[in-house]
Amino acid sequence: MNSDQLVVKMIMDRWYAQVKNFDDALNTFSDEQLEREISPGKNRGIYLLGHLVAVHDDMLPLLEFGDKIFPEINATFKSPDKSVAAIPAASELRTYWKKMNEVLTQKFNSMQPGDWFKKHTSVSAEDFAKEPHRNKLNIILTRTTHLSYHLGQFILLK
Amino acid sequence: MNSDQLVVKMIMDRWYAQVKNFDDALNTFSDEQLEREISPGKNRGIYLLGHLVAVHDDMLPLLEFGDKIFPEINATFKSPDKSVAAIPAASELRTYWKKMNEVLTQKFNSMQPGDWFKKHTSVSAEDFAKEPHRNKLNIILTRTTHLSYHLGQFILLK
Repeated sequence: MNSDQLVVKMIMDRWYAQVKNFDDALNTFSDEQLEREISPGKNRGIYLLGHLVAVHDDMLPLLEFGDKIFPEINATFKSPDKSVAAIPAASELRTYWKKMNEVLTQKFNSMQPGDWFKKHTSVSAEDFAKEPHRNKLNIILTRTTHLSYHLGQFILLK
Repeated sequence: MNSDQLVVKMIMDRWYAQVKNFDDALNTFSDEQLEREISPGKNRGIYLLGHLVAVHDDMLPLLEFGDKIFPEINATFKSPDKSVAAIPAASELRTYWKKMNEVLTQKFNSMQPGDWFKKHTSVSAEDFAKEPHRNKLNIILTRTTHLSYHLGQFILLK
């Protein structure tokens, strides 16, 4: 295993571990439980689920994997919870979450280790030359901490 | 910047960003606020603060930086909240958290990029030969997601 492979493995392992932890929690919660707030007056479980689908969907264009697959829910779950009256049902969001993970996993598997160190689409070639840490692998890293942050909240529905 | 330096920067940037976010939240909370539960029946803010100090303190021996600096509170904050009657005051834990970050930052700054890819102390040389991802940098990575997880909860005291 060369050094690029090693580092990609370390970071992807973290991503998949957080996805699995979220998945495990999601599978133990009923749709009714997902409707509850994580703490009085705070976000609902269903909102966090939709928010994660939306943020992960953004990774597709960012990593040059193509267009978002759920563009119709993106704005809803970037807006604060309860600011949009009609949101998809919990059962529907479960399907989106599953599909999102399948698509991302398939795309991730198509990458060679070196590809991860190339620039993502929201940094210019000029800036990237000066800031090579703004690569595709860094997107996984920042989305992993984002996912952990919300996982810590989501688990409170227990 | 060589590839080791790049990756160490990416991961350390994440660590410091989460520490700063936690710090910023901590500084806006009163001691009284820290005594509150993040959600009814769940951990108190003060417990999460102590728990993070304890887990970060463990990184010192794990990364060959020496002994823990707050061994006396370690067991308390590994046990569930409210299972130990007497815990340090919020003001004291704030001091510990600050000191912990100062010590870790100083130790991190003493590392050369290549040092991060050496084994940590809880993996044997034999296992490390087969699993080179179990290096010191991976400890930062796992502790960063751990910190994000609890940051997502801590912020609920707002």
